[in-house]
Amino acid sequence: MDKNVPLVVVRRLPRYYRYLTDLEEMGIERVSSQVLSKKLGFTASQVRQDLNCFGGFGQQGYGYNVKMLREEISKILNLDKCYKVIIIGAGNLGRAILNYPGFAKRGFRFIGIFDQDENLIGKPVGDLYIRGMDELEEFCESECPDIGALAIPKGTIDEVAKKLEALGIRGIWNFSHIEVTSTVPVETVHLSDSLMTLAYRISEEEEE
Amino acid sequence: MDKNVPLVVVRRLPRYYRYLTDLEEMGIERVSSQVLSKKLGFTASQVRQDLNCFGGFGQQGYGYNVKMLREEISKILNLDKCYKVIIIGAGNLGRAILNYPGFAKRGFRFIGIFDQDENLIGKPVGDLYIRGMDELEEFCESECPDIGALAIPKGTIDEVAKKLEALGIRGIWNFSHIEVTSTVPVETVHLSDSLMTLAYRISEEEEE
Repeated sequence: MDKNVPLVVVRRLPRYYRYLTDLEEMGIERVSSQVLSKKLGFTASQVRQDLNCFGGFGQQGYGYNVKMLREEISKILNLDKCYKVIIIGAGNLGRAILNYPGFAKRGFRFIGIFDQDENLIGKPVGDLYIRGMDELEEFCESECPDIGALAIPKGTIDEVAKKLEALGIRGIWNFSHIEVTSTVPVETVHLSDSLMTLAYRISEEEEE
Repeated sequence: MDKNVPLVVVRRLPRYYRYLTDLEEMGIERVSSQVLSKKLGFTASQVRQDLNCFGGFGQQGYGYNVKMLREEISKILNLDKCYKVIIIGAGNLGRAILNYPGFAKRGFRFIGIFDQDENLIGKPVGDLYIRGMDELEEFCESECPDIGALAIPKGTIDEVAKKLEALGIRGIWNFSHIEVTSTVPVETVHLSDSLMTLAYRISEEEEE
């Protein structure tokens, strides 16, 4: 397996992964780059190029073996491993993340949720209880979370990111509206991107 | 302006738009495709190709005029227009969407939030009050919302999507975990995609 898959390709892999999982659940055994292309909105040549990055399982006239391809992508994305995630911020966004379905089966386990609001500390959310920010250090030392999800107002983001970094967090999943600078990898969720794409599609399709 | 910008390019435009907005706010007047490429994680040739789709404002040795490029992308994405958005589902996710900052300045206005839970109806969220699902029809007839955001459990998704469609909604912004079939454009937010990318980056960077 070629380890040097470009990040731009990696960012597309979850979409392949989701679609291949759907196909496998439907009992479909093989899929062509044309079908993948149509369903995912990439060009067929991009699909071939993407999948070539890690070996290329396609066969002329056969397409791709769904199960093999899904497993390979799962390996590349390290979905066979388990990641422990903590959420900083127990407001609506933090709670929504915690309750969002489908993370567990991809190997992500939420083990803690933290807030500085005295009124929230101790309250239950899902299977967890909200902890105070002053418990963060001890918690990280004993539980060693891998990923910290930031669902807090932007004023405190940088301070919290630095704290998590110092406590050994391996990656930051940022839901705030601003960029986070860190020595560990940061992925920022920009909810407005898909809304902007939707606005474009509405106008385009109505003009046609 | 070429109207036939491929959807795969359109999906990348919000990222250009956000970054160009940052640059403009910092007073930066021009930017090269190399810098755009590095910051956005696309290849420099992809940046040039993308921006060529709608005319190409780059000049050899100068790069792109930040303000012009931002305005052009804003026009393509129709961000100069205003869209009225309603949210179906007033749980944590629905409330988080409503309170998420930054939509208003991109022309998206939340005008209603609905839920079927009797205990939620009438309660305030942000500037709005939660309405019952039985008010949806009358509300849509008088207020003509453009976009419906679905933040409800997957069991009811298809039924609600069909209802919104019948009530004249122009696009669906889907936060549920499953695909929605509709005659109007649907954009689905897959929160787990960025988490999977993060997991990949964690493993890669630690191996290096």
